[in-house]
Amino acid sequence: MTVADDEIQIPLEILEPKLASALRRAGLSEPIARIIAETVAGAEIDGSRSHGIHRLPGYVSSISSGWINTAAKPACEQTRPGCLAVEADNGFAQQATRAFSNRLAGMARSQGVATMFVRNSHHFGALWQDVEPLARAGLISIAMVNSRSHMAVWQGKRKTLGTNPIAFACPRTNAPPLVWDQASSIMSHGDILLHAAAGRPVPSGVGINRDGDVTTDPAAILDGGALLPFGGAKGASLAFMAEVLVAALSGGTFGFEDCSSNFPGAKTSNAGQFILALDPGAGGNASFQGQLERLIAELKHAGSTRMPADNRYRRRQAVHESGMLSVDARNWARVLSLAED
Amino acid sequence: MTVADDEIQIPLEILEPKLASALRRAGLSEPIARIIAETVAGAEIDGSRSHGIHRLPGYVSSISSGWINTAAKPACEQTRPGCLAVEADNGFAQQATRAFSNRLAGMARSQGVATMFVRNSHHFGALWQDVEPLARAGLISIAMVNSRSHMAVWQGKRKTLGTNPIAFACPRTNAPPLVWDQASSIMSHGDILLHAAAGRPVPSGVGINRDGDVTTDPAAILDGGALLPFGGAKGASLAFMAEVLVAALSGGTFGFEDCSSNFPGAKTSNAGQFILALDPGAGGNASFQGQLERLIAELKHAGSTRMPADNRYRRRQAVHESGMLSVDARNWARVLSLAED
Repeated sequence: MTVADDEIQIPLEILEPKLASALRRAGLSEPIARIIAETVAGAEIDGSRSHGIHRLPGYVSSISSGWINTAAKPACEQTRPGCLAVEADNGFAQQATRAFSNRLAGMARSQGVATMFVRNSHHFGALWQDVEPLARAGLISIAMVNSRSHMAVWQGKRKTLGTNPIAFACPRTNAPPLVWDQASSIMSHGDILLHAAAGRPVPSGVGINRDGDVTTDPAAILDGGALLPFGGAKGASLAFMAEVLVAALSGGTFGFEDCSSNFPGAKTSNAGQFILALDPGAGGNASFQGQLERLIAELKHAGSTRMPADNRYRRRQAVHESGMLSVDARNWARVLSLAED
Repeated sequence: MTVADDEIQIPLEILEPKLASALRRAGLSEPIARIIAETVAGAEIDGSRSHGIHRLPGYVSSISSGWINTAAKPACEQTRPGCLAVEADNGFAQQATRAFSNRLAGMARSQGVATMFVRNSHHFGALWQDVEPLARAGLISIAMVNSRSHMAVWQGKRKTLGTNPIAFACPRTNAPPLVWDQASSIMSHGDILLHAAAGRPVPSGVGINRDGDVTTDPAAILDGGALLPFGGAKGASLAFMAEVLVAALSGGTFGFEDCSSNFPGAKTSNAGQFILALDPGAGGNASFQGQLERLIAELKHAGSTRMPADNRYRRRQAVHESGMLSVDARNWARVLSLAED
């Protein structure tokens, strides 16, 4: 791995403890700080930098603002044999989903298909982190999350929907799960933040300014403008579906109803989450895994050199083998300044 | 409605009988001919012309080729409390899904979520026709279908996946369901066929020729070339998910495994279908419908003048009110030539 001037190498073993320390100092309890530190570290290790240590100050300021309930006690109701409704108590989504994901997995195995609806939660991490564990447990999984509004859709002149990512994972034999995770916007909000921080323009068509005109200035997009969906109306359809499945079904908050501005420093959204888990045997095909491998082999034969997540898995393996991680020096300095002495 | 030179007005009441007549003449039994005629007529009436009467010759030649089992007896197994595995017996998907959709709806109401996996079926119609009825029955629905390979994905140089459309529908209060239906390719295969038939070029970026180079010639795309997914890798991800959910889970045929070329004249794919139905109350939100209307009101307030399917519903209403339908004269002449005297 080449290391740029503004990159430094850190020992992997100090990453999570330093992140957890900063989160504890901001007000999280030890177990919740560990979950969030693991989430942020996992994204950084895999090279998902837009959800990595770059986001720690956002977590810290959101917690410090009083916007997030650091003493959240998530509660779960099984509304139907195949459905869990989770009230996240204004805490982090990861705390809520981890608490009940084994229950969801068990229901998917017995019912064939099961869903979890989470409301009143803050999801500030990468969505692939919610579906990969379910696929490692042998299940096919789809997840969606909404967020404060960032995106203008269907000829709308201002932002209404979140960037509403969708993630999919399926288990493989003799290989880690095939996982994809994509924002419904052309660029993720995290990537816009990275461009704005670096002063780099974004490609044309990615967003509009507060007057509804296309702009390449990330600051203008963030300052009263809006992101645009990928594939025009088609990406908008997906973002709309996510908004319905995660917020309307759970009784959660729509992106446009977000009131985080009442809490200066808050960077997260009180929103919702939808997770679907499917047993690969539920369609009556005993040779699902072999059939999936035929599909992947055909894609490679046609010229696809890698499957989604392959690059992430490669980075993850390299980091764990070397025990060292290359990080942005400035972002790491921020982590250290936020951590306890 | 303005009527072009190559358009004629026909009485609505003769549309379905003429279509059914042609399908009977091709070899379908009366009940199956009625289902397919209703499917084709419904698309034509709504203005989904790529799936309307333009497709009748394709249905007829596929049936006449012996590729489709006109005596299919679909069978259904409830593999789990939330899952139905349907063996369509090499018949039309619509015959199979109609036979068991009430059962799926009942399971969704009791389990909260339920899925139907269809294998060994031919789906040649518009996908919104599968989800709209479930939404009219009060359920949220997602459907996917695969097809013979048409699309190159993830840097692949040749076609591997079908255009694999995804459709979504949710019930509304005091309004018909909100429905969207979109191919995972930038243009649907049906639209490419319409462009090729009219000798019209397609926009750049829509497809590649047999050498893997971008082309605007629809004939070159159809002759050994490939369509491209919308949103690049993101549309490819969706098409891949559909291929997994509909073919790998059901034990159905992948698009690239299609062997319809053994049956000269065959235009349909022996493939699979995935339908998910969700009870709107399953997330624990008693005011789902009111909350959905808040979202739609906000989108309109931001400048979206119409929701997906609004145009189709408007056309449908106008046609039913006038009792007359404007159709392409040449396509209608083909219907008449294929119908019984």
